[in-house]
Amino acid sequence: MVEVFTAVEVTDVRFPTSRQLDGSDAMNPEPDYSAAYVTVRTSDGAAGYGLAFTVGRGNEIETAAVEALAPLVTGLPVADVLADPGGLSARLTGDGQLRWLGPHKGVIHMAAGAVLNAVWDLYARREGKPLWDLLAGMTPEQLVSLVDFRYLTDALTPDEALGILRAAEPGRARRRARLLDEGYPAYTTTPGWLGYTDDKLVRLAREAVADGFGQIKLKVGTDRAADVRRLRLAREAVGPDVRIGVDANQAWGVPDAIDWMTALAPYDPYWIEEPTSPDDVLGHAAIRRAVAPVRVATGEHCQNQVVFKQFLQAGAIDVLQLDATRVAGVGENVAILLLAAKFGVPVCPHAGGVGLCEMVQHLAMFDYVAVSGTLTDRVIEYVDHLHEHFTAPVRLRGGRYLAPTVPGAGAEMRPASVAAHRFPDGPVWRTPA
Amino acid sequence: MVEVFTAVEVTDVRFPTSRQLDGSDAMNPEPDYSAAYVTVRTSDGAAGYGLAFTVGRGNEIETAAVEALAPLVTGLPVADVLADPGGLSARLTGDGQLRWLGPHKGVIHMAAGAVLNAVWDLYARREGKPLWDLLAGMTPEQLVSLVDFRYLTDALTPDEALGILRAAEPGRARRRARLLDEGYPAYTTTPGWLGYTDDKLVRLAREAVADGFGQIKLKVGTDRAADVRRLRLAREAVGPDVRIGVDANQAWGVPDAIDWMTALAPYDPYWIEEPTSPDDVLGHAAIRRAVAPVRVATGEHCQNQVVFKQFLQAGAIDVLQLDATRVAGVGENVAILLLAAKFGVPVCPHAGGVGLCEMVQHLAMFDYVAVSGTLTDRVIEYVDHLHEHFTAPVRLRGGRYLAPTVPGAGAEMRPASVAAHRFPDGPVWRTPA
Repeated sequence: MVEVFTAVEVTDVRFPTSRQLDGSDAMNPEPDYSAAYVTVRTSDGAAGYGLAFTVGRGNEIETAAVEALAPLVTGLPVADVLADPGGLSARLTGDGQLRWLGPHKGVIHMAAGAVLNAVWDLYARREGKPLWDLLAGMTPEQLVSLVDFRYLTDALTPDEALGILRAAEPGRARRRARLLDEGYPAYTTTPGWLGYTDDKLVRLAREAVADGFGQIKLKVGTDRAADVRRLRLAREAVGPDVRIGVDANQAWGVPDAIDWMTALAPYDPYWIEEPTSPDDVLGHAAIRRAVAPVRVATGEHCQNQVVFKQFLQAGAIDVLQLDATRVAGVGENVAILLLAAKFGVPVCPHAGGVGLCEMVQHLAMFDYVAVSGTLTDRVIEYVDHLHEHFTAPVRLRGGRYLAPTVPGAGAEMRPASVAAHRFPDGPVWRTPA
Repeated sequence: MVEVFTAVEVTDVRFPTSRQLDGSDAMNPEPDYSAAYVTVRTSDGAAGYGLAFTVGRGNEIETAAVEALAPLVTGLPVADVLADPGGLSARLTGDGQLRWLGPHKGVIHMAAGAVLNAVWDLYARREGKPLWDLLAGMTPEQLVSLVDFRYLTDALTPDEALGILRAAEPGRARRRARLLDEGYPAYTTTPGWLGYTDDKLVRLAREAVADGFGQIKLKVGTDRAADVRRLRLAREAVGPDVRIGVDANQAWGVPDAIDWMTALAPYDPYWIEEPTSPDDVLGHAAIRRAVAPVRVATGEHCQNQVVFKQFLQAGAIDVLQLDATRVAGVGENVAILLLAAKFGVPVCPHAGGVGLCEMVQHLAMFDYVAVSGTLTDRVIEYVDHLHEHFTAPVRLRGGRYLAPTVPGAGAEMRPASVAAHRFPDGPVWRTPA
């Protein structure tokens, strides 16, 4: 019997993070970090895991979207899909009816990403490799076949993508060895949530430096005077040599962003993240021109590769923060890494949330080994919560992610965690806060 | 007792349009035109109707999104909401958890639009006016209060918006009278669906001219030779003085769009609609520079006012095609009309689908009376199907929409139509094609 996909299962999993104000920022004051958690199964009993990250209400919409995509996967021969993952991506993102709900954005696109990442997880397990190493072992031709170039060729052609990947081939083995030895640099967002007191901010900032982090991040955007005070305290706590990113989570319009960053400038912020709408390419470009040398960063809410393409074409960003679950999975993120390499912009992935650290580290490490070939100005975000719910939690040492060695793409959760946090009927949700 | 909203009901309604290939285009080959159909109800027994248009599969995701928004509306005093519709819009599009699913795009944003339009329908009924006349009777200050300026002020400030509206005040009464006398110009898409034979195309094109239309539209983008042949036939059928728009429904990348339009140029296409990804502002700008004097049009898939702002800032479009159900309802469309007026770009709304003609005519007519003040180069799309399912179907005469006089915003469907087409349990869907 030919092995086929037999099921795409989805579970609404939510963590009551709003009870502690972990994760609070200017636009998401009380998030309950959540996941539409996907399991793909095959007729041979194999499984792969993926998820779409949300912040609570609406996670049930995301699960409905995954259910709508399931019939496009079940019944397909596994070998055919793994031989051409780009084909499955085109099928899920190009369906003649579902496409209307995007195209390539929001709920339906994130659902496609969750399903595609689950298939990639199964693929990596089958190959006995962590995802980063599976990708870093593919030929340039295989990698280019993952990319949907329909809307990209004015900025990146298949030949240019091949050229980037071929240029990085000679150093792959050396960089792979170095990555396994030394890990990948991280920065931490743990000190800077808006809901934390000044004392907690200062204590956590000092701990971050002691732990070896060379960069921390503060949430800003609700109260300008408080932001100035908090950035000053953080700067005093970490000294002049540790980078401090600030993150407005889209709180501002263009003129407000420029004014606010002028007020923060004396305390040497390294980057301003999400200063305005994630859709506003031209707005980011205007802000970047005005706030330099402070860098402009965005990407966690960037809906797809077409918008990333424009951020790069317009010279709107200094730092590209891709997300593992916002776009259509591994294939679209390979496209985004190639675009960033073409334009010479460093990728510093968004993480935190539920399982984002576990997933996104694979993309950054693949980028280092086989695409950009460099760690310069590259850092992966790190947030120290919810890792205990994953079967292969990230490992950090001295402010660096250690390269994962467990086969897979990182999204598998512990069955007990899924059961406990299932919404609305899991025990965590049956007990009021 | 204070009147409050008591329910936001939603029904999955689908029409089996794929059985006739009505509505077939390059990216939506077999659509089943559908609606997440919304009814808001109050404690005094009042109701209002709205919908989100989709093309079949996934309509259940849209209904799930409406259900997620319902608790943000129920319990609110009706008088408070109608006194500040901008406040309700901010509540629905800014929820600290649901916002993550967009923000302001795709499934969750369309659901907000359906709910907000239903509230506007109730408001217009209560005032005894069609929506266009309700809006056109508001003061400039009231209209400006409907707009969320957070991400707009680099292109349009509240003062500039007030200036535009005040400048149009003197002629309101005269234009209102003219609109009631003469109606609003339309163009028809009926002849040009990809699934139609050449004979049917030619026959319908001739009928359109005989019916008084000054513009028709052809779908293109699947087969270049066929497109050249069909455009030639259409041009021969209608003569040199009738405008022919062509619509690629996002089929192309930037270089393909330019090449394809060069092949069609000998037959004098008036505009190229959706030449590429609706997210690609810079791509549209490049296409526009290359294909002039052919005009570039887009908007039916434009996710929100921030992207429309950039289309205008970048000089990327000649024609702005807003949609009644893609964005967050009447308020966001008022913002889009004001942006278009600021930049001097004509608005030619997208229609067709399910109820889009019925809804969008109000926005165009309001624009004429109280915003742009002109009909020059303005046309509303018209497609001649599914109108019979609405309680106040559009009325056309001599290629023009007659101004609706029935109170409301146009989205109310006949209860028998809703019952017959309810998915999956209505009689139309229990009977196989």
